[in-house]
Amino acid sequence: VRAVVLETDGTLALRDRPKPTADGECVVRVIAAGICGTDLELLRGYAGFSGVPGHEFVGVVEAASGREANWVGRRVVGEITVGCGECAACRTAGPGHCEVRTVVGIRGRDGAFAEYLSLPARDLHALPASVDDVTAVFVEPAAAACRVAEQVRIEPGMRAAVVGAGRLGLLVAQVLRNRGADVIVVVRSGRAESLATALGFKTVAVAAAGTSLARRFDLTVDATGDPDGFDTAQALVRPRGTIVLKSTFHGETPLSLSPLVVDEITLVGSRCGPFDSAIEELSAGRINVKPLVAGIYPLDRFAEAFERARRGGKVILTPAPGNEES
Amino acid sequence: VRAVVLETDGTLALRDRPKPTADGECVVRVIAAGICGTDLELLRGYAGFSGVPGHEFVGVVEAASGREANWVGRRVVGEITVGCGECAACRTAGPGHCEVRTVVGIRGRDGAFAEYLSLPARDLHALPASVDDVTAVFVEPAAAACRVAEQVRIEPGMRAAVVGAGRLGLLVAQVLRNRGADVIVVVRSGRAESLATALGFKTVAVAAAGTSLARRFDLTVDATGDPDGFDTAQALVRPRGTIVLKSTFHGETPLSLSPLVVDEITLVGSRCGPFDSAIEELSAGRINVKPLVAGIYPLDRFAEAFERARRGGKVILTPAPGNEES
Repeated sequence: VRAVVLETDGTLALRDRPKPTADGECVVRVIAAGICGTDLELLRGYAGFSGVPGHEFVGVVEAASGREANWVGRRVVGEITVGCGECAACRTAGPGHCEVRTVVGIRGRDGAFAEYLSLPARDLHALPASVDDVTAVFVEPAAAACRVAEQVRIEPGMRAAVVGAGRLGLLVAQVLRNRGADVIVVVRSGRAESLATALGFKTVAVAAAGTSLARRFDLTVDATGDPDGFDTAQALVRPRGTIVLKSTFHGETPLSLSPLVVDEITLVGSRCGPFDSAIEELSAGRINVKPLVAGIYPLDRFAEAFERARRGGKVILTPAPGNEES
Repeated sequence: VRAVVLETDGTLALRDRPKPTADGECVVRVIAAGICGTDLELLRGYAGFSGVPGHEFVGVVEAASGREANWVGRRVVGEITVGCGECAACRTAGPGHCEVRTVVGIRGRDGAFAEYLSLPARDLHALPASVDDVTAVFVEPAAAACRVAEQVRIEPGMRAAVVGAGRLGLLVAQVLRNRGADVIVVVRSGRAESLATALGFKTVAVAAAGTSLARRFDLTVDATGDPDGFDTAQALVRPRGTIVLKSTFHGETPLSLSPLVVDEITLVGSRCGPFDSAIEELSAGRINVKPLVAGIYPLDRFAEAFERARRGGKVILTPAPGNEES
């Protein structure tokens, strides 16, 4: 089985790996997998991961053991955390916060930049035909975007600024708009501006935002994936407003906490979200992902694909495209 | 009028100042004023303040202009922010968050370490006889403690850890306990431990807390007033839990934001609170402040008083004690 492996020295290489077996889990043949900002951070040391990255995928279940046999042949997407189901965190905060969890392509579990991966059936979601393969790759990030609306009450007319017009930022912006928020997207480049505009958003350049729009927004979302994003999100939020943190990156940021106290800001860390809502929104066409696709590459052109992903947009690897190999 | 003045070089000196006049505000003769952790931070450069510090006080209104004349003779405590009432922040987040606000003894307005101060009548609260002068000094910090319960829903049985057994920490701990939370106080010294224990709290030493109680609490409150407090509060909170920030201090802290995202922590900045609730709780004896008093000093012994305050406990200055001078 061919797989892109992140070595401990931070480099990527195409390797041959043993094919996973259906030992209590389902074996999924990966049709397509998206490169996420987190994957780029993994290469820089985030989470200390080595193994096969990739956690946004669509595939077909090829094998399953025992009572999960009914999954065989289904086209699926998969949640990325596998919890023990028994610890305090599993019981109070959910398996996504399990102390000993594995996370597909991020922590202790190989991911989707490979011809096959395995996952427990309870992590899988069958896809309706209305969600095509390319769209399906966006289920995981769209779920993460939907999570914001689970954590923060989105009121119609609420003024929201999404900082970062990357893949995740533009998904979050759409989710907030769908719930009635008045959304502006803070962009850093002309390319990002075009993309946000194509999706119907007002935009503002990051430099201008900090001055002309300071302290104007009820809700700001940092989806930049870099440390500067927080500063912008903090500059834009009004007193007693809310900042949602969507960025995970390697390293520390020097932060002055006192302004958060003085302005009584609420900061909400936000990670994975509800797959059902995401599939529903994507299936109904309420989240538009097609303009976000920057390129589709076969697995052996992974180096080129990662290089393209660094320049922005969603890049998709196709370990086993379509049904040709089935 | 004698006043303790914080000079621009960070030193304190007893000075003679002009007596405030009732020019649209009420002139309050200060009976007693508490030294707060924030005052100690002001001396280290926090908020860039120079002038008369002191924002926890009880006094008697001696003069008022026009329609506010009915305040004369009343024993009062005072809210500390004075907003313009017209800007966007005043309208959305309240006058406490006014862009051009003054704050008693902290920002653009002389405070209570003086024989007299002035404040608009709308900031004053008359005190019932059931709240004595020493207790009254705690109205402002008790209100700040009550603020936590306005911002975070306190459920009976909720596991809460208050980091810091200082004046504010022990007020917050009492407010949370009064609302049914199961509260433990994280202490740094034997003295703090005795104080917390005297108030009926379970305690744990900060070093032990980080390991044995890591990720156990639904709610943690940083009331330490120093940068380390946040680390402890973060170590103790469970995934998807809430950290309330009560500390304001000078300087930046290197912070890793990604764990807040991964654990989906909510951070709540918390500042001033409802005076009415605080007066009610203190009047009913539901918040016990007497064990927190470390010393009472006349104004001219301010240096000694500040030195004592640095060692912990609430230190009270008495610019015009009792009614002898009225």
